Amino acid sequence: MTLRIIATGGTFDKHYDELEGKLGFDKSHLPQVILRARMTLPVQLEELPLLDSLDMNDADRQRILGACLRADETGIVVVHGTDTMKQTAEVLGAAQLPKTIVLTGAMIPYETKNSDALFNFGFACGIAQALPHGVYIAMNGRIFAWDKVRKNRSLGRFE
Amino acid sequence: MTLRIIATGGTFDKHYDELEGKLGFDKSHLPQVILRARMTLPVQLEELPLLDSLDMNDADRQRILGACLRADETGIVVVHGTDTMKQTAEVLGAAQLPKTIVLTGAMIPYETKNSDALFNFGFACGIAQALPHGVYIAMNGRIFAWDKVRKNRSLGRFE
Amino acid sequence: MTLRIIATGGTFDKHYDELEGKLGFDKSHLPQVILRARMTLPVQLEELPLLDSLDMNDADRQRILGACLRADETGIVVVHGTDTMKQTAEVLGAAQLPKTIVLTGAMIPYETKNSDALFNFGFACGIAQALPHGVYIAMNGRIFAWDKVRKNRSLGRFE
Amino acid sequence: MTLRIIATGGTFDKHYDELEGKLGFDKSHLPQVILRARMTLPVQLEELPLLDSLDMNDADRQRILGACLRADETGIVVVHGTDTMKQTAEVLGAAQLPKTIVLTGAMIPYETKNSDALFNFGFACGIAQALPHGVYIAMNGRIFAWDKVRKNRSLGRFE
Repeated sequence: MTLRIIATGGTFDKHYDELEGKLGFDKSHLPQVILRARMTLPVQLEELPLLDSLDMNDADRQRILGACLRADETGIVVVHGTDTMKQTAEVLGAAQLPKTIVLTGAMIPYETKNSDALFNFGFACGIAQALPHGVYIAMNGRIFAWDKVRKNRSLGRFE
Repeated sequence: MTLRIIATGGTFDKHYDELEGKLGFDKSHLPQVILRARMTLPVQLEELPLLDSLDMNDADRQRILGACLRADETGIVVVHGTDTMKQTAEVLGAAQLPKTIVLTGAMIPYETKNSDALFNFGFACGIAQALPHGVYIAMNGRIFAWDKVRKNRSLGRFE
Repeated sequence: MTLRIIATGGTFDKHYDELEGKLGFDKSHLPQVILRARMTLPVQLEELPLLDSLDMNDADRQRILGACLRADETGIVVVHGTDTMKQTAEVLGAAQLPKTIVLTGAMIPYETKNSDALFNFGFACGIAQALPHGVYIAMNGRIFAWDKVRKNRSLGRFE
Repeated sequence: MTLRIIATGGTFDKHYDELEGKLGFDKSHLPQVILRARMTLPVQLEELPLLDSLDMNDADRQRILGACLRADETGIVVVHGTDTMKQTAEVLGAAQLPKTIVLTGAMIPYETKNSDALFNFGFACGIAQALPHGVYIAMNGRIFAWDKVRKNRSLGRFE
């Protein structure tokens, strides 16, 4: 089995730009994360444009769907911003692909102390190999079917 | 669903003792790891004596089996040293409990830069919720049934 | 000898707010930094309002001057944003206090991977004990007298 | 001014070997530390054999003295194990070189969470530029002349 990892940005991949003095995107941290995880499973990383998920539009979601469609792998982890993760999950879920697609992300950027990014990424990599075909949101230790979840923004968590 | 986490030591929980100048065990890092993971799933942490898995004997493995037997939860993650993880998995596997028990650990201590501990812990927490009852070893992105795995020590990985 | 540390904010103390999804200020990281440094020298930490130094006005700088004036200690480290560090150094320098006052900060927040904050803080703590009375800017391995420095913003460094 | 950094090992540079499962030495972390510190001062790094300072003998100390003698720079930071830092300081001090030589190290390895290594390194880099010629031990916020210091091993600190 090979796992496909699709990077789309979100808090997970936010980067502190020291000249600008603010958070944005540079390259994805995922190549480094995959090395750090010492993954012995073969992995294909695909880096789409990195976006804050509040800035994603329909075309961006179609691009993610296209990447899932074209993937040879049946296990896919999509690293995504949490704010509109549900909307992307709906687009992917409606397509009813014969694949296990797991969306995950982070509340704290990977490069920030005390980040949940590495935990969530590991969590999603487990689920993508273990659950039947379908589209799931997997964050902070909980797994949700794509059509049975909402983000509680005041608590910063999915329910 | 509630997840039970059982700490038994291993590289994951090794701690640098600054007076002795060497690695040993103090308290488990798991309470801090669970907070960092922002787990919204209820979790029960049980801390057994923390041991290097090369120092574990039959009684130590029976203690781990006892903890799994007594657990109310059907999903269990056992954090364990990698050197004898297979032996403990065999003891747990032979008991054929109606639970999903996932053993995991780390190649690099949690408190050391570039550690795989948080990834592996997330990975195991996903699998413990997603796979059927059974005993599994889950490390570095791969899942093994307890009776179909061995550790390749020269490469530092399970096969 | 006792060292006084005055926290005023800046990139050093920026904190990622996981509900807002952006960088701001919460409590200073300096209590934790001082513990981590295992400082055996007595230290007095004074926390002023934490500000982005671009948001500092004359009253804010007078408050910092007041803290330096009132301090019993003759060695003082001021943790400050880099963008207007020079302006604050000028206010402190003009007062010609019989103290060694060292302004420092960071290009990358303390809580972000690969931060220079701990290095700069150690650097300033050394200089505050070693140089004659005066006001200095100490960043990234270089020491500047307050009246002989400017920040090159395009390179993100003092010259 | 240029600063010379001499790496000799010690806790600062200890590295966790994931195949052996114990602490030893690989390459020095100092190239990475110097980049992280964003040092704008020119720096010459010289890497001597990396040793636990309990394993250092007279020849090892003469090698360090030789490196200090040959250095063109008048400011030198020696990164060294703490257990015999005083003995090396005595060898360097007796030579009465017209240079400012600062020995520093760490209680916790650079690559371990909560390490004091980066603080101590910054501290020493400040002192090496600011104090008159002489040999100093600089650890955890305190500066000692080479002939007025001892290590209290039960407290893990210099006095």
